[in-house]
Amino acid sequence: MTESSSSAPLPHVLIIGGGFAGMAAAQGLKDAPVRVTLLDRTNHHLFQPLLYQVATAMLTPGDIASPIRQLVAQQPNVTTLIAEVTGIDAAKKIAYVTYLEEPNTPLHYDYLIVATGARHSYFGKDHFERFAPGLKSLADATAVRNHVLAAFERAEMEAETCHGEGLLTFVIVGGGPTGVELAGAIAELRKYSMRRDFRRIDPQSARILLVQSGPRILPTFHESLSTAAQERLRKLGVEVRLNCKVEEVDELGVRIGDERVASKSVLWAAGVKPSPAAQWLGVEADKGGRVKVGTDCSVPGLESVFVLGDTAAHPTPDGGTLPGLAQPAMQQGAYVADLIRRRVLGEVPPPPFSYFDKGNMAIIGRNFAVLEKGPIRMSGFLAWLAWAYVHIAFLGGFENRIVVAAQWIWSYLTNQRGSRLILEPRKDPWKLTG
Amino acid sequence: MTESSSSAPLPHVLIIGGGFAGMAAAQGLKDAPVRVTLLDRTNHHLFQPLLYQVATAMLTPGDIASPIRQLVAQQPNVTTLIAEVTGIDAAKKIAYVTYLEEPNTPLHYDYLIVATGARHSYFGKDHFERFAPGLKSLADATAVRNHVLAAFERAEMEAETCHGEGLLTFVIVGGGPTGVELAGAIAELRKYSMRRDFRRIDPQSARILLVQSGPRILPTFHESLSTAAQERLRKLGVEVRLNCKVEEVDELGVRIGDERVASKSVLWAAGVKPSPAAQWLGVEADKGGRVKVGTDCSVPGLESVFVLGDTAAHPTPDGGTLPGLAQPAMQQGAYVADLIRRRVLGEVPPPPFSYFDKGNMAIIGRNFAVLEKGPIRMSGFLAWLAWAYVHIAFLGGFENRIVVAAQWIWSYLTNQRGSRLILEPRKDPWKLTG
Repeated sequence: MTESSSSAPLPHVLIIGGGFAGMAAAQGLKDAPVRVTLLDRTNHHLFQPLLYQVATAMLTPGDIASPIRQLVAQQPNVTTLIAEVTGIDAAKKIAYVTYLEEPNTPLHYDYLIVATGARHSYFGKDHFERFAPGLKSLADATAVRNHVLAAFERAEMEAETCHGEGLLTFVIVGGGPTGVELAGAIAELRKYSMRRDFRRIDPQSARILLVQSGPRILPTFHESLSTAAQERLRKLGVEVRLNCKVEEVDELGVRIGDERVASKSVLWAAGVKPSPAAQWLGVEADKGGRVKVGTDCSVPGLESVFVLGDTAAHPTPDGGTLPGLAQPAMQQGAYVADLIRRRVLGEVPPPPFSYFDKGNMAIIGRNFAVLEKGPIRMSGFLAWLAWAYVHIAFLGGFENRIVVAAQWIWSYLTNQRGSRLILEPRKDPWKLTG
Repeated sequence: MTESSSSAPLPHVLIIGGGFAGMAAAQGLKDAPVRVTLLDRTNHHLFQPLLYQVATAMLTPGDIASPIRQLVAQQPNVTTLIAEVTGIDAAKKIAYVTYLEEPNTPLHYDYLIVATGARHSYFGKDHFERFAPGLKSLADATAVRNHVLAAFERAEMEAETCHGEGLLTFVIVGGGPTGVELAGAIAELRKYSMRRDFRRIDPQSARILLVQSGPRILPTFHESLSTAAQERLRKLGVEVRLNCKVEEVDELGVRIGDERVASKSVLWAAGVKPSPAAQWLGVEADKGGRVKVGTDCSVPGLESVFVLGDTAAHPTPDGGTLPGLAQPAMQQGAYVADLIRRRVLGEVPPPPFSYFDKGNMAIIGRNFAVLEKGPIRMSGFLAWLAWAYVHIAFLGGFENRIVVAAQWIWSYLTNQRGSRLILEPRKDPWKLTG
């Protein structure tokens, strides 16, 4: 299918996934003598670390997403397709994708880059999902935004009839960066942005619970930063429950240990599950389901197949694996692009991939962040400024950076949210988008 | 229900509809000794004249909509509710609304302002709607955006299989301002914004038809401006069909007179139908279904009921009625607010409403508009600048103005669209939003 789209018989690099790893790989192949096909299920590259700000009406979807097609418009060697991978025949070098509603459409490749990311995981309790959605796509984030705003609207309307058990109780499951950032953002939304908007309820009366199974929040950070973050959340009025597990989630709320908490708004930030690339490839996975790769990101035994980002268990010198973050994914993408370019040109291969850790950050509400880079640890306003700078600097499109900066400055100065829309979803009547 | 929300026995003004007329009325009652309840089906006030820019991915939904609650946050005498009116008992001064999924919830009023706007009309052929959506809400606009972008994606994917009869044929039914603006915007999207994005199709090959039943487009403008607009559309590659009627619309395309045109993208901009306020009130309507009102916007025989905006047939001195535009609606809202304030305070009533026509404008693509104000007529770039100024100046929130101005300037300088996202719609799992 793609063979005929180019007249030159250049090697064909198939990239599955337009996230941080896939985009970095595509952009890294800009000047390589290859044809690139970049597949994604959606038409946009997403800046996932800011999804929680869309979910809490601080930013709009357009602020954190750019059309993939537009990001590679200047690269004539890249073809972009909206399609979904369903299987891979590594012996024949064919990926099978669902494409134009046609399942099992074969796509031949010379080099394959699998960067299909992760979804949230319910640890086998998938029935939680319906009432405890996670935050991985723009559709997730806008659904959560609609819901959180509607909960306040509904509470205002019911104020006199006194239904609404748990209507203004927000339970966030998981004390990693996403859970902490969500809790902080909802606390701020409630405290500042909505301050003058309601007549019958006090938005400040909304209860926010952050439930963490381990002994501290932000467990990947230094202990002092976990403490600083927890103290900050306490000041914002968030109840942090440590060493607690959410045993059950249903339409009425959650069970935490033996305690029932009524809640109409449970948000899941507790775990991720990689895409099933190991099954597609028929290769070994680690305990978490990630494909075990070599130090050059390739799959052992399949030298033309590379697995990157959240889907890969990439070994580190200390015997661990790389964390599922944007930075390692982007660096892997650039590395593999360089490796393929050299291989195609017959040059010497690059040295093994080595991850340069630019630091680890999380934001808690307005003007407070925790930041860690090697021995450097910061918390507070300066860390927040650093966080804002780094996030704006890495946003996809140039325009997005300007708009996001403007939104943030505005929001910072006024405590108003720019995107508090409850939008009724509507399906495409012509069924082109599937 | 609302009685208990205020301790003082102030008169209760019920405003149905948070559009231009309803918002102006609510804001005009800021200092009046009344309680105001403002109802809308959605949580946002919408700047409808720019909906076509959301539909064509120039602006995002958040750019042209502001939460109603936020717009009246500084007015403690206004309570905002999301509800839908279903009937009115004018004798008992009760409006019946669907509220918290509860139909026929009674709301007592002392003064009633009905500003429920209009939907598009298919002139009795409602089966057209499924395949020829109109543009009245943000849900409409995002559905059209998803569809238009998906059509290009689909064409790119099908380029080699050669299906897709009519995939890149856009038929716009109706040559008024909305139809003309849509046609111009799609032409520009195709010509500039998408120029470098596709590898297999030439977006410029997309066909755009504007079908107008009368002898000229923009019939409410002076004939010279119709000619200028049509010439501009021709330069942009839009086929304008005059004196033509779309006789049939189905999933394969349209029939225009005897000619079948294959099209997967038919957009309806041909007519509007007012909300059924005349039925609710049991009063006389004009031929178009609008409530006949007096020069003070009140309904004859119901001195406490006012009907404004697109729902009203408001007499003009020349024997006609006011056009269904934002300006008359806003002026009516401010007028009725003043009238009610005076009546409550026992002051002399204001003189009859008189419409101050600030002029009539339409934009055709980038940097071209037609503009008419009394004897003044302009077309071209200067008219476009005036158009941009007026539209930004009237946007709901201050922030929106800044962001929209930034988006436009960016778009103007780069020909890139900031909002080219195809978003999968998703229902709220908790069913709070209905």
